[in-house]
Amino acid sequence: MPKIVDHDERRRDIALAACRAISKKGLEKVTLVDVAREEGFTTGMLAHYYQTKWEVVLAALRLMHLQLEARLEERLQRREMTLIDLLQSALPLTASTRAEAAAWLSLWGLAVTQPELLKWPQDIHADWRELIRRCVITSIDDASHWPDRLLDDVVSSIICFMDGLTVKALTRPRFYTRAEQLRLLKMHVDAVVAYARGSLKANPRVLSTGAELGA
Amino acid sequence: MPKIVDHDERRRDIALAACRAISKKGLEKVTLVDVAREEGFTTGMLAHYYQTKWEVVLAALRLMHLQLEARLEERLQRREMTLIDLLQSALPLTASTRAEAAAWLSLWGLAVTQPELLKWPQDIHADWRELIRRCVITSIDDASHWPDRLLDDVVSSIICFMDGLTVKALTRPRFYTRAEQLRLLKMHVDAVVAYARGSLKANPRVLSTGAELGA
Repeated sequence: MPKIVDHDERRRDIALAACRAISKKGLEKVTLVDVAREEGFTTGMLAHYYQTKWEVVLAALRLMHLQLEARLEERLQRREMTLIDLLQSALPLTASTRAEAAAWLSLWGLAVTQPELLKWPQDIHADWRELIRRCVITSIDDASHWPDRLLDDVVSSIICFMDGLTVKALTRPRFYTRAEQLRLLKMHVDAVVAYARGSLKANPRVLSTGAELGA
Repeated sequence: MPKIVDHDERRRDIALAACRAISKKGLEKVTLVDVAREEGFTTGMLAHYYQTKWEVVLAALRLMHLQLEARLEERLQRREMTLIDLLQSALPLTASTRAEAAAWLSLWGLAVTQPELLKWPQDIHADWRELIRRCVITSIDDASHWPDRLLDDVVSSIICFMDGLTVKALTRPRFYTRAEQLRLLKMHVDAVVAYARGSLKANPRVLSTGAELGA
């Protein structure tokens, strides 16, 4: 009987190998040969699934992001989770979230001179934004009654803050330790939720503008 | 009479040329030859002042940062400046702050696999932190009475948020427009200042721990 190849699994294996190769050599220097070597694949086999290095890189970023979303989804199913409990699974506190954060930071840095690299991950950004919105609504009792515009602002603020915290955790790890990251994130979340409630109290007729923002 | 060369001025001219070369080719690909060509210098003349490409890059980053600090200092001298008026001069809203932000983002991305690149700019980080602290104290009436620990946290929070906003402005410029950046920064500053005041009211005997944090 001929061996049946599960192509989705094969793609996932390649993406996993790419994650490892990226964490060793960096986004700019990693090659298809490096990815193939990680798992003893041939470059010919790789070429059957991905044409260019950047396709593999994107697949690796997507895979890491899906794993992160799966962890967050799993936490969303549990009860009594605070917003900090939920969000902290996205901070670079473990080896895998750190590797993902490092890959994103590399991509952003390269995109300064190669802006076409930013076109690909737009769907990841949209999913991420939606997931953070669900985290806010699930863990903050009154947030489901907030006008869209206010909720959008809170989501944007949290996403920006977590990006900044990620940059700091990777570039100034001695100061932005695990405890410091969690403390600053908690402070930001507490501050911005209190701000949202205060602005509703001051102006209960805030109009929902349905403004759509990118992650 | 022999021509008198102002070496400091020469170094500044080279750093300026490096800023331009970096914005065109990116931190990774820029070469000493590119920098020399920008101003019609010879590479021999450059070598008299800087031995490696990375020394020139650091000089360029320092120069951009000094220019930014000078703009902020100038604003600090004026009266009636809000914290947003002060901080916005550091957001990537103009060609020059955008070029500086792009250079930093490139450096952070490269540092993922070359962490030694992060050793150099530590004094810039410390100066930056001190300057943001002065902005807070100058523009927020009661901040000079806040315990050190609380003031440190507010400074850390603002610095993290501005880093995140900068990443977003560079990687998602369509959504994080100038108006959106200013609106989100104002929201963050208002929220975190209110949080600081609230935490003092709730616990007026907050101890000053003198905790020292890195920018």
